[in-house]
Amino acid sequence: MGREKGRAMNPIPVIEAVRDGEALPEGALEGFLESYLADEVEEYQMSAFLMAVVLRGLRRRDLSRLVHSMLHSGAVLEHEDLEGPTVDKHSTGGVGDKVSLVLAPLAAECGVYVPMMSGRGLGHTGGTLDKLESIPGFRTDLALDEFQAMLQEVGAAMIGQTSEIAPLDRRLYALRSVSGTVPSIPLIAASIMSKKLAEGLEGLVLDVKVGAGAFLPDEERALELGRTMVEIGADHGVPTVALATAMDRPLGRTVGNALEVREGLDCLRGEGPADLREVVLSLVTEMVLVGGVGADADAARHGVTDALDSGRALDRFRRMVELQGGDPRVVDDPGRLPSAAVRLEVRAPEGGRLDGLDPLALGRAVVELGGGRTRLGQEIHPGVGYADLTPPGTELAAGDLLGTVHAADEAAAEAAAAALRDAVRIGHQGEGLRPLVSHRIDEGGVQVLHPAR
Amino acid sequence: MGREKGRAMNPIPVIEAVRDGEALPEGALEGFLESYLADEVEEYQMSAFLMAVVLRGLRRRDLSRLVHSMLHSGAVLEHEDLEGPTVDKHSTGGVGDKVSLVLAPLAAECGVYVPMMSGRGLGHTGGTLDKLESIPGFRTDLALDEFQAMLQEVGAAMIGQTSEIAPLDRRLYALRSVSGTVPSIPLIAASIMSKKLAEGLEGLVLDVKVGAGAFLPDEERALELGRTMVEIGADHGVPTVALATAMDRPLGRTVGNALEVREGLDCLRGEGPADLREVVLSLVTEMVLVGGVGADADAARHGVTDALDSGRALDRFRRMVELQGGDPRVVDDPGRLPSAAVRLEVRAPEGGRLDGLDPLALGRAVVELGGGRTRLGQEIHPGVGYADLTPPGTELAAGDLLGTVHAADEAAAEAAAAALRDAVRIGHQGEGLRPLVSHRIDEGGVQVLHPAR
Repeated sequence: MGREKGRAMNPIPVIEAVRDGEALPEGALEGFLESYLADEVEEYQMSAFLMAVVLRGLRRRDLSRLVHSMLHSGAVLEHEDLEGPTVDKHSTGGVGDKVSLVLAPLAAECGVYVPMMSGRGLGHTGGTLDKLESIPGFRTDLALDEFQAMLQEVGAAMIGQTSEIAPLDRRLYALRSVSGTVPSIPLIAASIMSKKLAEGLEGLVLDVKVGAGAFLPDEERALELGRTMVEIGADHGVPTVALATAMDRPLGRTVGNALEVREGLDCLRGEGPADLREVVLSLVTEMVLVGGVGADADAARHGVTDALDSGRALDRFRRMVELQGGDPRVVDDPGRLPSAAVRLEVRAPEGGRLDGLDPLALGRAVVELGGGRTRLGQEIHPGVGYADLTPPGTELAAGDLLGTVHAADEAAAEAAAAALRDAVRIGHQGEGLRPLVSHRIDEGGVQVLHPAR
Repeated sequence: MGREKGRAMNPIPVIEAVRDGEALPEGALEGFLESYLADEVEEYQMSAFLMAVVLRGLRRRDLSRLVHSMLHSGAVLEHEDLEGPTVDKHSTGGVGDKVSLVLAPLAAECGVYVPMMSGRGLGHTGGTLDKLESIPGFRTDLALDEFQAMLQEVGAAMIGQTSEIAPLDRRLYALRSVSGTVPSIPLIAASIMSKKLAEGLEGLVLDVKVGAGAFLPDEERALELGRTMVEIGADHGVPTVALATAMDRPLGRTVGNALEVREGLDCLRGEGPADLREVVLSLVTEMVLVGGVGADADAARHGVTDALDSGRALDRFRRMVELQGGDPRVVDDPGRLPSAAVRLEVRAPEGGRLDGLDPLALGRAVVELGGGRTRLGQEIHPGVGYADLTPPGTELAAGDLLGTVHAADEAAAEAAAAALRDAVRIGHQGEGLRPLVSHRIDEGGVQVLHPAR
């Protein structure tokens, strides 16, 4: 970062410029962040800076500088021996979002390398690591060299964030959580993008969830987050595309770790729910395109669909499970996945059209069942959750199945059944749901794919 | 403040509410501040709070709660044996502002008690303590009981801020200066008012300076500061009035500590410059009125003028000097004040009307002469500065006196002479100066006394 060693930098002008909405001079932000990492800028100066960013934002150029410093604060992967582009996908998180399990092997099958580092579930949204770890033996704590070898061998590898990646992001994230500076689109975008870009990518596709179960439920703010991340990607020379997808109901028909793996396997067999399949196909098509390995959108989509329906992506997933230490027999015999002792069917109390299914309520109920966390490091029960959820839009008769609760005991099952009954909205008006894939964002701007009804 | 001991409070909701412009629940801010003083709220949480206040402001009720906590964090004076109301004046600071020297004994002569705690000069504005200390032997470091005794005896006492007053203000002030959170009208108002209200006042008059030499040069912001302080006073049951006075040129014809004492003594003798006399009479009239010892504005003004012209205020000043350890002979023989070795007359290079005299430039030049500070604790030379400054508005012929530099050596004198020549604006257009006393602010709002031309 070029700052002369031993020359003290004054952090106050940097804080003042952000406070006053002014552009920062060349090198100022980099020096500020470098000094912070060297403990020469105090935590109280950084928290004042963060609050100024929350309330005043950050100019595009300065935001990209922030991301640059965060990303280069730790290891940045390099992939020299691969025969294709490295492309990853990131989701802003939702309920029932098992997309990565299907997408990673499918994208690998389509010619891109997927070096995916994921997170754990916290709050009402699930985490890919927890889902993978419901496969007996599956290791997500590979060292970086093992990760690289996996990538070379299978074309996709899925691990947890290591402490070598973006340590500045971790420090800032910890400080934000105790200083009231969490809700900021530039800071959220910087946190996501610094970690993703550290994977050494040549392309990135973002799945920006919109609706009650999303991290940013509001469409406008979600699109702004998408746009901001696309700009950061472009500024770092990494072509980035975002799709806005529906999170006003769960994705697919299951919520809960092992139950979602089972549904992901269905999808990899060319079966499973239509919404999950459509989101997977849309995202992988974009990955192929940003990776430059597809001729055009139609050809890419065709190739991706074919790779899924042929079973080749499933084969690749089986190898990935095996090489990451998991029991590959799970792939063909999902009965080997952990399960819950109690199952309870929940039925419609009245007839009518299923207008809505609140994803936030279901996500929280799965946490209550023990399938998610309320604090870091908590043990979870991989087998619990909801299955057979009736898709919104379905016409129901009284007594039809709304879904099946999988729980550790009867009391927990009853509570989750009550939560499902509360989460259901039955009416006759045909209230609108969000379009499944509503917007596409690239450097050119936001494109409406399917307008909301 | 009523918070149960040992019950941890969560500071984050307080920071978030201010960040989001929301009102704080009863007791929340008090708990936050109390926990900060107990080192249970971290500095990085307080600096995030302060930045949120800078950028979002604070609702009137919450600002008054902040001031309440700041003021009660230390000693609050009580004046039980006095025979009249305690009323003080505070100025936001200017160049050539020797008002307090005249005002304190004059107000005391008019029936109010003036328990004045002042500051030192820092930056381009002078400080009352430095001016008083140019009187040989004058002590401004009286203990609080000595201060009370002085007040009882003379009706006025002038000391420095003691460490017993508003310690929370000192901590916040120190943090603001290193976290980019200085420029905030609510925080500035809170800092001033917490210290003034700790004097145990029954009335307060504020002199809000407006123009290039003021702390807030812009009229609108200066009036907002005045209005905010008037509201805080009212919320604490202390009738408070603010006058906006001109600081687009120096007040009076001298700038520099001993030179200003000399000019203050002239004013106490019923002589001296008209602008200084007018500002003093206006402010003391308001003090008499807020203290409830004047029948009406006309009667009060008449009484104050009479007290000044009679020489009785001068007598009272003499007693104050004597009781605070100073040499009272200075009062009748200002030649005993410290003086500078070199005097240099500065003359008009051309004829014309003196349209302007930049107070900021002169204030800075006095600092350069050694008469002010660029950092806390610096020694100053009490004798240096400018005297005989020609009042703006005067018609000059080439060669007429612009002012006399008082300096420690020839080189410094030349530099200050050059600064004076640069600070002078000679034209023929009769550019407007600000009205000397332009606005009056009380609980009813802002009243324009003399519109700007």
